[in-house]
Amino acid sequence: MATGSILVTGGAGYVGTHTVVELVEAGYDVVVMDNLVNASMESMRRVNEITGKQVPTFSIDMLDKEALRDLFRKHKILCVMHFAGLKAVGESCNKPLLYYKTNIGGTISLLEVMKEFGVYNMIFSSSATVYGSPSYLPIDEKHPVGGCTNPYGKTKYFIEEILKDICTAEKQWNVVLLRYFNPVGAHVSGKIGEDPQGVPNNLMPYVSQVAVGRLKELTVYGDDYDTPDGTGVRDYIHVVDLAQGHVAALKYLEKGCGCKVFNLGTGKGYSVIEMAKAFEAASGKPVPYKIAGRRAGDIASCYADASLAEKELGWKAKLDLAKMCEDLWRWQSNNPTGFRTES
Amino acid sequence: MATGSILVTGGAGYVGTHTVVELVEAGYDVVVMDNLVNASMESMRRVNEITGKQVPTFSIDMLDKEALRDLFRKHKILCVMHFAGLKAVGESCNKPLLYYKTNIGGTISLLEVMKEFGVYNMIFSSSATVYGSPSYLPIDEKHPVGGCTNPYGKTKYFIEEILKDICTAEKQWNVVLLRYFNPVGAHVSGKIGEDPQGVPNNLMPYVSQVAVGRLKELTVYGDDYDTPDGTGVRDYIHVVDLAQGHVAALKYLEKGCGCKVFNLGTGKGYSVIEMAKAFEAASGKPVPYKIAGRRAGDIASCYADASLAEKELGWKAKLDLAKMCEDLWRWQSNNPTGFRTES
Repeated sequence: MATGSILVTGGAGYVGTHTVVELVEAGYDVVVMDNLVNASMESMRRVNEITGKQVPTFSIDMLDKEALRDLFRKHKILCVMHFAGLKAVGESCNKPLLYYKTNIGGTISLLEVMKEFGVYNMIFSSSATVYGSPSYLPIDEKHPVGGCTNPYGKTKYFIEEILKDICTAEKQWNVVLLRYFNPVGAHVSGKIGEDPQGVPNNLMPYVSQVAVGRLKELTVYGDDYDTPDGTGVRDYIHVVDLAQGHVAALKYLEKGCGCKVFNLGTGKGYSVIEMAKAFEAASGKPVPYKIAGRRAGDIASCYADASLAEKELGWKAKLDLAKMCEDLWRWQSNNPTGFRTES
Repeated sequence: MATGSILVTGGAGYVGTHTVVELVEAGYDVVVMDNLVNASMESMRRVNEITGKQVPTFSIDMLDKEALRDLFRKHKILCVMHFAGLKAVGESCNKPLLYYKTNIGGTISLLEVMKEFGVYNMIFSSSATVYGSPSYLPIDEKHPVGGCTNPYGKTKYFIEEILKDICTAEKQWNVVLLRYFNPVGAHVSGKIGEDPQGVPNNLMPYVSQVAVGRLKELTVYGDDYDTPDGTGVRDYIHVVDLAQGHVAALKYLEKGCGCKVFNLGTGKGYSVIEMAKAFEAASGKPVPYKIAGRRAGDIASCYADASLAEKELGWKAKLDLAKMCEDLWRWQSNNPTGFRTES
């Protein structure tokens, strides 16, 4: 391994923190930058506690090129793992310009500074949302992309296209696009986990807040889909599996790869009701729910063909649904208000 | 008409200058900004000569927000006609990051400053390239978009999506997306016209430089397409018709329109050979050509269904192929080296 560090943008966030832990444990030197708009320094304190290392952490916004340059001058960066970005689908519909500026403008700024410093390696945090409404299942990496209906999803798609075009034009680049399915769970220590601000947008943080008593009941949007129990089916992946997928992608990239795309999912789909039941079993707490109508834009089923990552990266998800729920519950019950002190 | 000016970004360029002339002649107050990367102040001197007015012109880059703010402080802007951007397909493949930064980053910067100053009206210079390879002909505005294969085309498509999303989120916006087919020709005065740097990428500037003796012969890429004479068919529109389409779009937007899309084309397709022959007839000069193989990415035929613009904007192209060639020849023969002094 060449001497230098892996720069993790958005490293104080949910997938970021878990990936930093796995990188440190795999022996990498890691530098974190995060603008802390949607994360806290407390999460990095916990990462340091878990790993027993002090990960250098900079409070930097991607759009601040001078601050980026300063970081690249201070640290020899080998590869950038790029998690930074706004990620709330609903908010992106209300504030599209903010999302395009932050996610696309921020990525362009980062790429420019990388070029200035001769850093041509990136692993990008993309999403299965780039596939839009599935035209077949399971979704493999050859599935058409671009049918996103919300600005958040479009920013992921546009950034993928920008990175692909750069790799085509400039052969020194190595870029791995990782398309996540639905990350859930938390580190086994219970010290870090997903910490949404306000009412959670995603199912499992919502379920766990119902179980811990912060929210009254789960609303299930639609029980008349063409699925075994009528509720929507998704591919949930343990965030630690996902983080290890990034380490595998980094080892793959180090050999020189050009631009490559991998799904990170389990290949298995679970329904909303199955998830709620599994969480009840893991937590021993009831998760009451009510059925409501379908939400516009929701689809019946979505799950990955994850065989390419297994074949090329030698990685596959190992942690099952019970473990996802158990680890999420440990995080939620130990930290009922997330990284914030109870108010 | 409310008191204030129309800001034309990229106003010193080919379509920009012609549109400024038509706006001034229609009685609008116009302010031009252009970073002059691909244009010269000489073109604006000619515009002033044609119109008999002094159009305030600022040498500003869209990415310079402070300079933009200064312009918006000095001039009350009613609507922005947004032409600024890099536009060479081949260069965009070699320098994608530059194209994404300039076109997308520049547009985001412009939109942010517009919002700061409460300016919510924009007419955007888009392109038929957003349709990708046609799935039917003629192409109407309902044709699928997004199949662009080069970064230039993708920037047009991404900006369209950004503008649509903003209009959905913020109802005070009025945006007209004008999808140009192939602008050719020049102002009847022969004082302004297309002035490509280096060897022209587009057919008609190439043809006219062959006729004037700057280039040896035309290369025709493919004579075995499924078209009447085997060469590619496109929808060429006189740049003055196109410019008048912008004035019509502005009058339409002033009534409040939300986000609307219009093709600007003639609806008629002409082949490469037909164009060369028409130019020979107009110029009285021979246009020798040789046949070469097809170019990757080229399609057989592309032409507009322009009926929506006629119905909604009350605009249709009036100038025929002979006039396109005649006006282009006047510009080319009066200005064999464009806006530059012969060296």
